[in-house]
Amino acid sequence: MTAFDVLTIGNAIVDILSRCEEDFLVDNQIAKGAMNLIDAERSALLYSRMGPAIEASGGSAGNTASGVASFGGKAAYFGKTSKDKLGEIFAHDMKAQGVHFATPPLGGTPPTASSMIFITPDGERSMNTFLGACVELGVEDVEPEVVANSKVTYFEGYLWDPPRAKQAIRECARIAHEHGREMSMTLSDSFCVDRWRDEFLDLMRSKTVDIVFANRAELLALYQTSDFDGALDQIARDCDLAAVTLSEEGSIIVAKGERIPVQPLAVDKVVDTTGAGDLYAAGFLFGYTNGFGLSDCGRFGSLAAGLVIQQIGPRLQTSLRQAARDAGFIL
Amino acid sequence: MTAFDVLTIGNAIVDILSRCEEDFLVDNQIAKGAMNLIDAERSALLYSRMGPAIEASGGSAGNTASGVASFGGKAAYFGKTSKDKLGEIFAHDMKAQGVHFATPPLGGTPPTASSMIFITPDGERSMNTFLGACVELGVEDVEPEVVANSKVTYFEGYLWDPPRAKQAIRECARIAHEHGREMSMTLSDSFCVDRWRDEFLDLMRSKTVDIVFANRAELLALYQTSDFDGALDQIARDCDLAAVTLSEEGSIIVAKGERIPVQPLAVDKVVDTTGAGDLYAAGFLFGYTNGFGLSDCGRFGSLAAGLVIQQIGPRLQTSLRQAARDAGFIL
Repeated sequence: MTAFDVLTIGNAIVDILSRCEEDFLVDNQIAKGAMNLIDAERSALLYSRMGPAIEASGGSAGNTASGVASFGGKAAYFGKTSKDKLGEIFAHDMKAQGVHFATPPLGGTPPTASSMIFITPDGERSMNTFLGACVELGVEDVEPEVVANSKVTYFEGYLWDPPRAKQAIRECARIAHEHGREMSMTLSDSFCVDRWRDEFLDLMRSKTVDIVFANRAELLALYQTSDFDGALDQIARDCDLAAVTLSEEGSIIVAKGERIPVQPLAVDKVVDTTGAGDLYAAGFLFGYTNGFGLSDCGRFGSLAAGLVIQQIGPRLQTSLRQAARDAGFIL
Repeated sequence: MTAFDVLTIGNAIVDILSRCEEDFLVDNQIAKGAMNLIDAERSALLYSRMGPAIEASGGSAGNTASGVASFGGKAAYFGKTSKDKLGEIFAHDMKAQGVHFATPPLGGTPPTASSMIFITPDGERSMNTFLGACVELGVEDVEPEVVANSKVTYFEGYLWDPPRAKQAIRECARIAHEHGREMSMTLSDSFCVDRWRDEFLDLMRSKTVDIVFANRAELLALYQTSDFDGALDQIARDCDLAAVTLSEEGSIIVAKGERIPVQPLAVDKVVDTTGAGDLYAAGFLFGYTNGFGLSDCGRFGSLAAGLVIQQIGPRLQTSLRQAARDAGFIL
């Protein structure tokens, strides 16, 4: 069995990306910067109001797997698609990046998930996700050998939204820890944290999860506080290792009572923030599973996140390995 | 009936765009910079070898209609899709841009056309097109009222590849000229000119077509010469008005014995040339149908072409009307 650096698990989604003005979000009651869950009917309505778009494979953990592979790491992915055009596109983009992806697709119903992403002039993205086939991801989709042979298994907090995925995650955690591997998660979205706060805290406190990724809003939501410093203290108690991203202020790594500040990449213009957190996690986990120190892991994260926000869409069309070489981070 | 500035007619295609190295084109026998026609089998083979991609509506004349609408012009489009996901995407992107598009789709077979576009590090695009549903565009798809009410009807030379479209074009020309309108075409691609040279020359000499767009390679192919200056003289005799694009050297408008040079837009870095000619035509025809002089038409063309080559994909995500305002071309 191949050994993987990182296995990621998430909602397998194709993004439909378009620019819009701020008013559009207000008029259509879209929570800005958030992942809004929508049904098929609202999906059709919003699409009818959406401007010209482009399509790109997405899904938070899918973007992370793609990023790890782009750095030259060995990545695997579990996620549910359907036998349709978007499913074909999603699978192609994973395999073409060198990611192991073998989750069997559904027969066609529900369809492969899509997310309409509206990008406002400030570069912020607001997502509207129809989960489609993702609701069927279950414990039967766990490939035990892949989990056992992955240094880190990483999953999205978003997986608490579909009904059966959490069981798959718990099974992965069992296998991973049995093989001396580590489990990691992202809190995903502050509204998602609001929906699943107690379960997320339990995942951390029960040591089901070892490494946590969050942004500032998610961290504050987790501890229902406006005291950022206090929230950092709390997460330091709740998990072994956490990386908290702070947009243009970089990130802070919290490990064993230590706080390590990480500089962001200098960015001329933010084009589209889609995938920023996912690519930060990709860089961090690539470094972490390849023997780099925590500061360097953060630098890989800053590099990947800083590059992805200067383009439209969450999958970098250029090589992160080359970018890391150009930056002098690796040979 | 609404009056349209420009009606465009072409192969309705969704582009699948990915970066590749020069070697990839050689190894896969893809003619660089050209539109390579492929069948379903080769399409599947090339897709299996293609890197991670993004999808965007395309089709030469489709891009032109989208560009005219982006300038604020009134545009219409005829082109054949199928009732499938790519057809849905294509139709959405046209209508979302404000383009009139009502060609009835096929039931599902053949599928909506797609073109795998490989972008080399120099920004050049090499297209591999599976025509799919486009082969069924025919005279029954002509909406006579739309033709009669469009100031210019513009079509792709590419339409000579599917079997029945040329009959539709001749019918459009009959209606257009009966209503005192003008017909325009692009020579599309030098290999396409090689395939249909005599018929293209006949379209011009019979005055079926009034305005011709070409790039340097297409013009030289048309007259089977390496004498660019002589070729300009020849096209001046064969049609009333021609615009010949010259990549980074801008373009030359040939009208009534006069040659008008047009400067290109200053471009920092060519990201992807996909759609450059299509957007030049969009700018030119927007100006032409809105009362601007020929030099100004050329400036609109340079602006649109210069912007589209600084992004991936042939449909601008930003407003050309705003860009024209920012450049001081319009109020």
